[in-house]
Amino acid sequence: MGEFDLIARYFTRPVARAPLGVGDDCALVRVRAGYELAVSTDMLIEGRHFLPGANAELLGHKALAVNLSDLAACGAQPLAFTLSLALPEANEAWLAGFSRGLFALADAHHIELVGGDTTKSVVATGGVAGGQLRVAPGPICISITVLGELPERAALLRSGAQVGDDVWVSGTLGDARLALGHYLGEWVLDERDLALVAPRMHAPTPRVALGMALRGIATSAIDVSDGFLGDLRHVLKQSGVGAEINVDALPVSALLGSQNPARARACALSGGDDYELIFTAPPAAKESIKNIAKLLNVTLSSAGLIRKKSDLILRDAAGQIVPATLRGFDHFA
Amino acid sequence: MGEFDLIARYFTRPVARAPLGVGDDCALVRVRAGYELAVSTDMLIEGRHFLPGANAELLGHKALAVNLSDLAACGAQPLAFTLSLALPEANEAWLAGFSRGLFALADAHHIELVGGDTTKSVVATGGVAGGQLRVAPGPICISITVLGELPERAALLRSGAQVGDDVWVSGTLGDARLALGHYLGEWVLDERDLALVAPRMHAPTPRVALGMALRGIATSAIDVSDGFLGDLRHVLKQSGVGAEINVDALPVSALLGSQNPARARACALSGGDDYELIFTAPPAAKESIKNIAKLLNVTLSSAGLIRKKSDLILRDAAGQIVPATLRGFDHFA
Repeated sequence: MGEFDLIARYFTRPVARAPLGVGDDCALVRVRAGYELAVSTDMLIEGRHFLPGANAELLGHKALAVNLSDLAACGAQPLAFTLSLALPEANEAWLAGFSRGLFALADAHHIELVGGDTTKSVVATGGVAGGQLRVAPGPICISITVLGELPERAALLRSGAQVGDDVWVSGTLGDARLALGHYLGEWVLDERDLALVAPRMHAPTPRVALGMALRGIATSAIDVSDGFLGDLRHVLKQSGVGAEINVDALPVSALLGSQNPARARACALSGGDDYELIFTAPPAAKESIKNIAKLLNVTLSSAGLIRKKSDLILRDAAGQIVPATLRGFDHFA
Repeated sequence: MGEFDLIARYFTRPVARAPLGVGDDCALVRVRAGYELAVSTDMLIEGRHFLPGANAELLGHKALAVNLSDLAACGAQPLAFTLSLALPEANEAWLAGFSRGLFALADAHHIELVGGDTTKSVVATGGVAGGQLRVAPGPICISITVLGELPERAALLRSGAQVGDDVWVSGTLGDARLALGHYLGEWVLDERDLALVAPRMHAPTPRVALGMALRGIATSAIDVSDGFLGDLRHVLKQSGVGAEINVDALPVSALLGSQNPARARACALSGGDDYELIFTAPPAAKESIKNIAKLLNVTLSSAGLIRKKSDLILRDAAGQIVPATLRGFDHFA
């Protein structure tokens, strides 16, 4: 099956919002007057961002989810996306599953695939023979670019945190890392526990509605992809501020809370792939934030304060300093 | 060197047009009132779209050029682009060269890199050991998404060719394929000849100014990435028309014209990677097109006619039918 047949069969769907869909040289997208276009791009490589043999449907979901999470962190409303896909073989079952997961999430956010590119993934094994380069199958490589829209000057930036702001976190942290540790053999979860945390790793929920609701309320925001500490540090650096965090106030699931304390803390502080939002807001915004939590049915926890000094201090509930030497999640390969 | 250092050193530059540059969760881009956003995305994989060991600077140029070529085919003015890059290693010399080639072309088109993602490219070699997945270095993978703008309803589409239109081609066809054949050992070019055609393969010129000039004049357009025949067929299919092409009227360089005739014809008809534009226009537009050719200093050749019947007929200069069984360029792996 050729490149164009693949696109046609699995990725061409009627496109309502964009004037044009997949199949011309470009897609055309309209942005409303008074709005800005928000753009983000993320690439997932097999063996680096997901394990070989990962379920195709969940992968379709996750590849789009991690991109939508970037829009969420800016408070943008998703509009459309493009997909470039490199595959070692044209496996129909894989494509059917991948596109099912991808479009289910796209439909949930009312966004459309407006452009794309599929290609064979190879890795060169050296030299040319018989007019052909010698190659072996390469990794699955998924590159998605999402487009969203935002009222002008309404974007939540990493650079807006103010001294005295509270530091907030949505949902719970660390479950994705707890699941990953099981797959990597770092620890063993029983079947029921794995079933609780595996979806946090395989099918994260981008906090799109939360990001939009925080426009005009949060002073800064970022999504947790590399880990709470690593991502918070990006906010601190770009805002030119520091923070004091109560590590025991970081929200974790009952299951993660029941693990050995060192493991639980490491997962919450440095486990990546959570796709929750970290955001900052002045104390006066507390009521508004509680209302948003209720309306959207999402837990929002305050876990610290933005400080003047440009360092990051971690304390436990007893006020003892916790070393902040744990590194951010740097993928698993 | 970590992921973020790489981005900072080679890909962060001052951004003038976009409100935000690289380094936040999203980039923000403004689209003028009355304009549409044109979006296109293309992925290049080592061993598939370029040969291992390809010059990094030329590759930086080419990766952006093939994307700009899609904007050109729609008549869009380039605005900004995003880059996702997977590399088997953080090779500084490679990054310096790649970013130099990339930004030289970006600067020539007054566009800015507004978002990106760099990651390690791996290929799994099977199983997990010591809490780590076993992997080997993967292929270089480059995914670029370009954004452009177009006055509303001004886009050149593949679907607009009309019966009676002339079929036009810019520049010359087939030189990129002639160079590739040398590298693949299909034939041997001497050093001087290779120096003439290698730039057509390694550093193609996207026909951006031509595409913009053809707004309101051309009825359809496409860029030649897969080969003249394959790409013309996309236009014919989407326009619901056929065409009669004089294969001897297809523009080729003096060097390709001096090759053995079968090779020259195959390269011109089916060689990919030319990034010239094929477009259609009514006979009344001939004078305008000649003026554009003069103004932009680009050769524009008329090589056939759009016909009613939905097939593609190839004839030589003597009027003899040439079999159209040659396949489009399907890359070299």
